[in-house]
Amino acid sequence: MTPVGRKPDDERYRAILETAARLICERGYEGTSMQEIAGACRLTKAGLYHYIQNKEQLLSSIMSYGMDMFEGQVLAQVRDIADPVERLRACMRRNIELVMNGASKEVVIILHEHATLTGEAREYIDRRKKQYVRFIEETFAEAVKLGRVRPLEPTIVAFSFLGMVLWVYKWFKPDGRLSEEQIVSGMVDLFFAGLAVPGAASGPASEPASAQVLALVPAVAVGDKP
Amino acid sequence: MTPVGRKPDDERYRAILETAARLICERGYEGTSMQEIAGACRLTKAGLYHYIQNKEQLLSSIMSYGMDMFEGQVLAQVRDIADPVERLRACMRRNIELVMNGASKEVVIILHEHATLTGEAREYIDRRKKQYVRFIEETFAEAVKLGRVRPLEPTIVAFSFLGMVLWVYKWFKPDGRLSEEQIVSGMVDLFFAGLAVPGAASGPASEPASAQVLALVPAVAVGDKP
Repeated sequence: MTPVGRKPDDERYRAILETAARLICERGYEGTSMQEIAGACRLTKAGLYHYIQNKEQLLSSIMSYGMDMFEGQVLAQVRDIADPVERLRACMRRNIELVMNGASKEVVIILHEHATLTGEAREYIDRRKKQYVRFIEETFAEAVKLGRVRPLEPTIVAFSFLGMVLWVYKWFKPDGRLSEEQIVSGMVDLFFAGLAVPGAASGPASEPASAQVLALVPAVAVGDKP
Repeated sequence: MTPVGRKPDDERYRAILETAARLICERGYEGTSMQEIAGACRLTKAGLYHYIQNKEQLLSSIMSYGMDMFEGQVLAQVRDIADPVERLRACMRRNIELVMNGASKEVVIILHEHATLTGEAREYIDRRKKQYVRFIEETFAEAVKLGRVRPLEPTIVAFSFLGMVLWVYKWFKPDGRLSEEQIVSGMVDLFFAGLAVPGAASGPASEPASAQVLALVPAVAVGDKP
């Protein structure tokens, strides 16, 4: 549910949000006029205002719609997986797939652009994003307790996860050399098992951080963000 | 060297680029007028045009300046490290530091925004960015040959590296709970050694990709991008 505007529950409204998202992705929020959005939707400007109040509310609705999609296609699908390592792995897999796939990828992209939103609408989206960061941190912390993953700093883990996954929209090409499955599997493998050959002289031994990092573990998943 | 505009070799010109970059970061390229940029630089609009030709040339110059900084502070500092694993590790460290540090971070951020540039100026920046991707892929490939890192798909490695490193600008706060050193060390450790406890049932075994990934190795670092 969005704090402003109608719910994206009818087909026509969703189509408007997706068309507007595509234009905003191409031209930037400031570079896209309501006239252009109306035109691309085959509506008059007055017709467009039947569906939305103003440009900022449109952006806010696109972001809410993006969060709805993300939560439906990623979080809701993995939340009940009992094993935390499998939950985290499935979450990464589904999130990469969402970034790579489908007609709605522009909606997802906009979510991660620097926010143009202000006030209540911005807080609302920020809160939903933070819930996702917390979900990753908490799942990771559960896996640490089971001794399944190393006790790294959970916030660094969460934002490294997000960086790898969300950056995909910058470089992925659907007709590229690598298949979606290669990218998903390769990235999950890298995140969990790392680059180094276990035991070879390229592991974390030459990084002085491990001890400091361990000292931070009690703060797991409660955290103020950095 | 930039293909258009003057070289950022004098103090005044660099200050204009940094001020303009800060405004564009805050308001977006389309949302920032030349009048506002002139005002923030304490110049008249005519005074500003003494230094730059037009808005697109300004953006192009900011990006070139960003690439100069990146190449000077990251690539030039690590290129001659003989050991490829140490080279890659130092490169990640210095790139994260560049994203976190200093007055010029806006210039670096702009580099990674969706390009508004067109034509020759865009090709020029894209070429320099691709050289960096290739540097990471080739360094990784060298380390694979030495048996120091696992034979993953080099392009996935390169863009995972970049995603982790460049996403930092989205979440890092200088006054946050985590120190810069914690973030750098934690991220380098995660990238090289991975999340999983070696030997615990959370490694890549349940991912079916390893065999496929190995089959791709001969293409290392020559690659067409995906």
